[in-house]
Amino acid sequence: MAAIGVFDSGIGGLTVLRALKQMLPDEPFVYLGDTARLPYGSKSPRTIRNYLHQNVAFLESLGVKAVVVACNTASSVLEGDDLHGLPLYGVIQPGAQAAMAASQGGAVGVLATRATVASSAYRHALERLQPGLQVVEQACPLLVPLVEEGWADDPVTETVLQRYLSEPLATGVDTLILGCTHYPVLKHVVQRLAGPGVTVIDSAQTTAQVVKNDIMRGRLAATTRPGGIDVFTTDLAPGFRELGTRILAPYPIDSWSLADL
Amino acid sequence: MAAIGVFDSGIGGLTVLRALKQMLPDEPFVYLGDTARLPYGSKSPRTIRNYLHQNVAFLESLGVKAVVVACNTASSVLEGDDLHGLPLYGVIQPGAQAAMAASQGGAVGVLATRATVASSAYRHALERLQPGLQVVEQACPLLVPLVEEGWADDPVTETVLQRYLSEPLATGVDTLILGCTHYPVLKHVVQRLAGPGVTVIDSAQTTAQVVKNDIMRGRLAATTRPGGIDVFTTDLAPGFRELGTRILAPYPIDSWSLADL
Repeated sequence: MAAIGVFDSGIGGLTVLRALKQMLPDEPFVYLGDTARLPYGSKSPRTIRNYLHQNVAFLESLGVKAVVVACNTASSVLEGDDLHGLPLYGVIQPGAQAAMAASQGGAVGVLATRATVASSAYRHALERLQPGLQVVEQACPLLVPLVEEGWADDPVTETVLQRYLSEPLATGVDTLILGCTHYPVLKHVVQRLAGPGVTVIDSAQTTAQVVKNDIMRGRLAATTRPGGIDVFTTDLAPGFRELGTRILAPYPIDSWSLADL
Repeated sequence: MAAIGVFDSGIGGLTVLRALKQMLPDEPFVYLGDTARLPYGSKSPRTIRNYLHQNVAFLESLGVKAVVVACNTASSVLEGDDLHGLPLYGVIQPGAQAAMAASQGGAVGVLATRATVASSAYRHALERLQPGLQVVEQACPLLVPLVEEGWADDPVTETVLQRYLSEPLATGVDTLILGCTHYPVLKHVVQRLAGPGVTVIDSAQTTAQVVKNDIMRGRLAATTRPGGIDVFTTDLAPGFRELGTRILAPYPIDSWSLADL
């Protein structure tokens, strides 16, 4: 009964796990949140790749049959769709596909961490889907700390977001990708500031759909008996477990353990 | 020719190294910035202690004769003044002493990370110096990302600081400790918002003085020949080296290397 592994630098990736569990309710899942070393978004490609390999190796040691890299920053350094033969699913390609499906021909904006923007991973994915597309990538380094501080609905966050959105909106984007698992809790603020003419995309649903498709097509083995959700984090900061339980509801967490990485 | 080791979660601790080099110009120094795993301030005591031990072991492997823990958060988990016989100097005790020297009898405020505030390390150090002293500790988790974003003189930072300062100022503090190596670049804003009746303290000078005193008293061996500054960081994110060179000026950096921790 091999589980599907999911990892993120923190617990924001639980939004991706929730979408997966909704589409694949019988599959067992193992989640790894690298909370001791977060955030990834301000680090170098070398360090991010190093952490990616360690996290995948940890999940592999638990016998997973595939790994979903829910972290956008870690997805931005993926060099293929497997690691030593273990299938890997990133969130950038699905996010780009969802954006192209929603766009009415305008430019596409990407809100992401500094590292994701520096990698140009979204730009490349979008341009592969539609050569010549106008893409505006905006690094938003303050959004993760603002979300972690619980200031999602604070005037300070609105001021910061207004600044981050000014260039994408001036360029005439009709689609905005939330390119970091922390950002979906800001979706309503982004939508309000961007206005009704802009579609705001997060990649959780689309990523889950890609994994489900592979199971339907037999490219990934379906589980033979129903399983639950086991969560590992590399640090046990207070509040994470409560927040994680809230994000995953109504799906219960079977175990929450410390991973020493 | 044993060097003095200095470490911080990032490069903010170079302000402490600069104060040390100013007071002890002949001493060789080795600096370790754990930039791959920063920030420490949002992590659990267990993880912070784990990183502290790894960082000290790394500096010990380079043959240092003592380690200055320039990071307030790491200093807050110190359990004594040595580790396996290697002398350790934290910044909290010197910061508390500087605050008591400056205070005119009012309350003392501490601006620090969430982990430092949770440890109550400043409160304990201050209360040991003056039992019954009124201490107001304020966690300021957004200040580090705002400084790293380069928004020190931004209206957003002023708004955030106003909020963080409201309780300490309402309590009538006459002294404010900047309890994180990132905060000194905000000193002028804090001073302006707090008003002329409040003394703003950072612990770089006082910490350097403690180390110098130990060398003068022969408790720590003085170097036999002049040495420079070697810097190690655990990640090589762009911009760090330039910023580090600027902080340390006029003292040159002899080497800048990657440490694999």
